[in-house]
Amino acid sequence: MVSSDIKKYNKKYDYSYCMGAFPTFELIHCRSGAADSVYIHSKTSESIRDKITAECQRAGIPVVLNDRVIEKVRDKESCLLLGIFYKYEMSLDHGRNHVVLVNPSDSGNLGTIMRTCVGFGIKDLAVIEPAVDMFSPKTVRASMGAIFHMNVQYFKNFSEYQELFGEERICYPFMLKGEERLGDFSHPQEKAFSLIFGNEAAGLDDDYLEVGRSVRIAHSEDIDSLNLSLATGIGIYEFTKSVDFP
Amino acid sequence: MVSSDIKKYNKKYDYSYCMGAFPTFELIHCRSGAADSVYIHSKTSESIRDKITAECQRAGIPVVLNDRVIEKVRDKESCLLLGIFYKYEMSLDHGRNHVVLVNPSDSGNLGTIMRTCVGFGIKDLAVIEPAVDMFSPKTVRASMGAIFHMNVQYFKNFSEYQELFGEERICYPFMLKGEERLGDFSHPQEKAFSLIFGNEAAGLDDDYLEVGRSVRIAHSEDIDSLNLSLATGIGIYEFTKSVDFP
Repeated sequence: MVSSDIKKYNKKYDYSYCMGAFPTFELIHCRSGAADSVYIHSKTSESIRDKITAECQRAGIPVVLNDRVIEKVRDKESCLLLGIFYKYEMSLDHGRNHVVLVNPSDSGNLGTIMRTCVGFGIKDLAVIEPAVDMFSPKTVRASMGAIFHMNVQYFKNFSEYQELFGEERICYPFMLKGEERLGDFSHPQEKAFSLIFGNEAAGLDDDYLEVGRSVRIAHSEDIDSLNLSLATGIGIYEFTKSVDFP
Repeated sequence: MVSSDIKKYNKKYDYSYCMGAFPTFELIHCRSGAADSVYIHSKTSESIRDKITAECQRAGIPVVLNDRVIEKVRDKESCLLLGIFYKYEMSLDHGRNHVVLVNPSDSGNLGTIMRTCVGFGIKDLAVIEPAVDMFSPKTVRASMGAIFHMNVQYFKNFSEYQELFGEERICYPFMLKGEERLGDFSHPQEKAFSLIFGNEAAGLDDDYLEVGRSVRIAHSEDIDSLNLSLATGIGIYEFTKSVDFP
């Protein structure tokens, strides 16, 4: 890509950015095929510059020293490294566990949830539209590059997801009215699961009580509800407890 | 307080604000003694205006209709209600479970953690300095008013906390190097616990391995660490599982 063509991010572009060293290394390691180029600012420390240059050379990714492009695109002054990548399509894996987000409306939340998913070994995320843009630099940054470890697929509505994946697995919608308390039951290991979470403000509507086995995270009446990324994190933690992490 | 004296928040003032209906109701219900006044914007719906006016009257809190003050102070245009309160001092309860945050640096995280604490019935939060201001409007908003349900006490350093509360309870520092895996052991119910979490960027340093029983939240090597508010939420969830919430 020609430096003069690079502009502040817009959802309609077919490319996006990851900002900062950690996410850029994840891009190079996990999605080098999508990477267009890596921009380095003159204030980058020599050790990071050498390391990223070596890794880009190995992966065949052009490295450009150019302060102006980074300063034009970044949203935090501390960002000294920019990875440019083309957006790509992904499909969820049938055999694996999924997280399903219905109408997520906050880019930061979406990224944080990706980071938690990858942290607990869940690599497949379904997003039900309308929803925020998974490739926005804000989401990529909040994910700390976890997005490059995942399959993320968008669906027009929940029925579309359910038709493709519903039969083979157990769906667990998380709702304030959920019938079973998280932690009080166990998921049969021979089946895959999908953990379903609603929008930040509205949660899941009552129709989801008919989908699979509804779950509630019991909490005191002193709060209205848990924050979405917290609820998702607690749900994923409980469902992946038997996995043998370090 | 005279309207013309009300300025944008500054940490050095002896008063602060809560913005929006939900946190303002929490202020009136839980900390009416600290409340100075409630400001209502002319765009507030009639039903909320009536409800808040009735509750303020019952609690003896003056209600002021004044758009200019709200527009000067708020940081989101959607805010139509402002509660003004004087800062107050709190002390932790000796018999109860605590969360301890060492050097939290993000106001939003601090508020989100308060909300999660209250959600799982933990009403005592220790904050080890240096740390962000618990009364900043950003923290109050992220807490969704949960701050008004809690005791929060600041300590100059961890030793000061430990001398006052260490003997009577079991301390669990959460660390990447923690010796026991969360979920693999259980806390003896007859003792109180303190769950200790480090700073967003640095975590807890190795000295904390000597404090009580260190805990790790096992996760995959594909991420560096979990987000602080996520780790705190998961820890609190696991430790309060036996509590009989609805």
